[in-house]
Amino acid sequence: MSSAAASAPTQTPRFAILVAGGSGTRMGADRPKQFLELRGEPVLLHTLRRFSEAALGVQECIVVLPAAQFETWQQLCTLHHIKLPHTVVAGGESRWASVRNGLAHLNAQPAGIIAVHDGVRPLTPLSVIEATYAAAAVHGAAIAAVTPKDSVRGLSKEGSYALDRSRLRLVQTPQCFELGLLRRAYQLPELSTFTDDASVVEDLHPIHIVPGDYRNLKITTPEDLLLAEALLG
Amino acid sequence: MSSAAASAPTQTPRFAILVAGGSGTRMGADRPKQFLELRGEPVLLHTLRRFSEAALGVQECIVVLPAAQFETWQQLCTLHHIKLPHTVVAGGESRWASVRNGLAHLNAQPAGIIAVHDGVRPLTPLSVIEATYAAAAVHGAAIAAVTPKDSVRGLSKEGSYALDRSRLRLVQTPQCFELGLLRRAYQLPELSTFTDDASVVEDLHPIHIVPGDYRNLKITTPEDLLLAEALLG
Repeated sequence: MSSAAASAPTQTPRFAILVAGGSGTRMGADRPKQFLELRGEPVLLHTLRRFSEAALGVQECIVVLPAAQFETWQQLCTLHHIKLPHTVVAGGESRWASVRNGLAHLNAQPAGIIAVHDGVRPLTPLSVIEATYAAAAVHGAAIAAVTPKDSVRGLSKEGSYALDRSRLRLVQTPQCFELGLLRRAYQLPELSTFTDDASVVEDLHPIHIVPGDYRNLKITTPEDLLLAEALLG
Repeated sequence: MSSAAASAPTQTPRFAILVAGGSGTRMGADRPKQFLELRGEPVLLHTLRRFSEAALGVQECIVVLPAAQFETWQQLCTLHHIKLPHTVVAGGESRWASVRNGLAHLNAQPAGIIAVHDGVRPLTPLSVIEATYAAAAVHGAAIAAVTPKDSVRGLSKEGSYALDRSRLRLVQTPQCFELGLLRRAYQLPELSTFTDDASVVEDLHPIHIVPGDYRNLKITTPEDLLLAEALLG
């Protein structure tokens, strides 16, 4: 990462939106999954720490949380002595609305590359984050993704049919974009088909894919938390 | 599972082929992945134990292994006091050839339902195995599969495009078939597009999909072994 740090002075400004909208009900846990403890610290803190790495040169990290969780996050920051600079912004009704709120906080920024990342992906290798930022600077829009390990089938009326998995990718985050491009995409109406930021942007601009990492887990089930513990062990 | 056991006398005979062709090079381990230790026992033993559960009523379990590994498996069986009845058959050059060899061992059987299962899927819930056998008895061909947790994209010349993941399934095993149907499918020539038994059979018969389980891991990376340990813990 030393080369990235060396080139930082001439680099386009980098921003990050960490989206953590979970209410925790899906995990069956007593708290939102972004606050579950991983090695004794909230999942979201692990994620924030990755994007705060000096080598990445991220100028501003925005954490989007439900307003009802601001106080808990503040208490966790105090409890865990979190000194990582970041801005907390209130989420919306959907992931799309939450990212839009985070993006609005950067209205004064003229240009840059912005990463949108799941707050509950705490294990993303720095190399993947760096590669996605770098690819977005070249291509305008770049996302991390991996080839499925399993065979993939599509559903049909008769049953199902085989697909060529080498032509498919399972999408992860970060997803990085030129700031102006992401802004234009978020001025369009929300669609029910939006599942991530690539789907928000793709009508305006081709989506470049960067190799992700199988360890770049999204913590959505109790098994995921177990695996994350094991991977950090 | 008591209802399955109660109906066993009138049930179509059940067979299982456990395919374990790995040489271990992909794991970077010192031994084939089917022999890696999970909670102190070889992965393949865990898998064999699942299919040996009395409630499933499997009449014969065939373990397909590279001939060069027969002696090691025999030693492991002795070391771990494995008393589970099974037949060892030599694998072929490809997964397809290995399954064909296993199937040939059942030439004398007039009918039944046969499960083909990855030897390195040691955590398959019994309920998934039972449901797949039962669905194959009704539909002729049934496989376990899960909906992708991540957004999925297809690759295009311009970049990539969003797919509807609710119409996609990540394929697992077991994959169960009427014995005669699987035999007919394996009389056709091997194709490079075969990635599993559903792809071998699908030109002859529709493939029914049964809900799999996210815990039904295939042990192909060191992280998978860590997760399997955690899930069994």
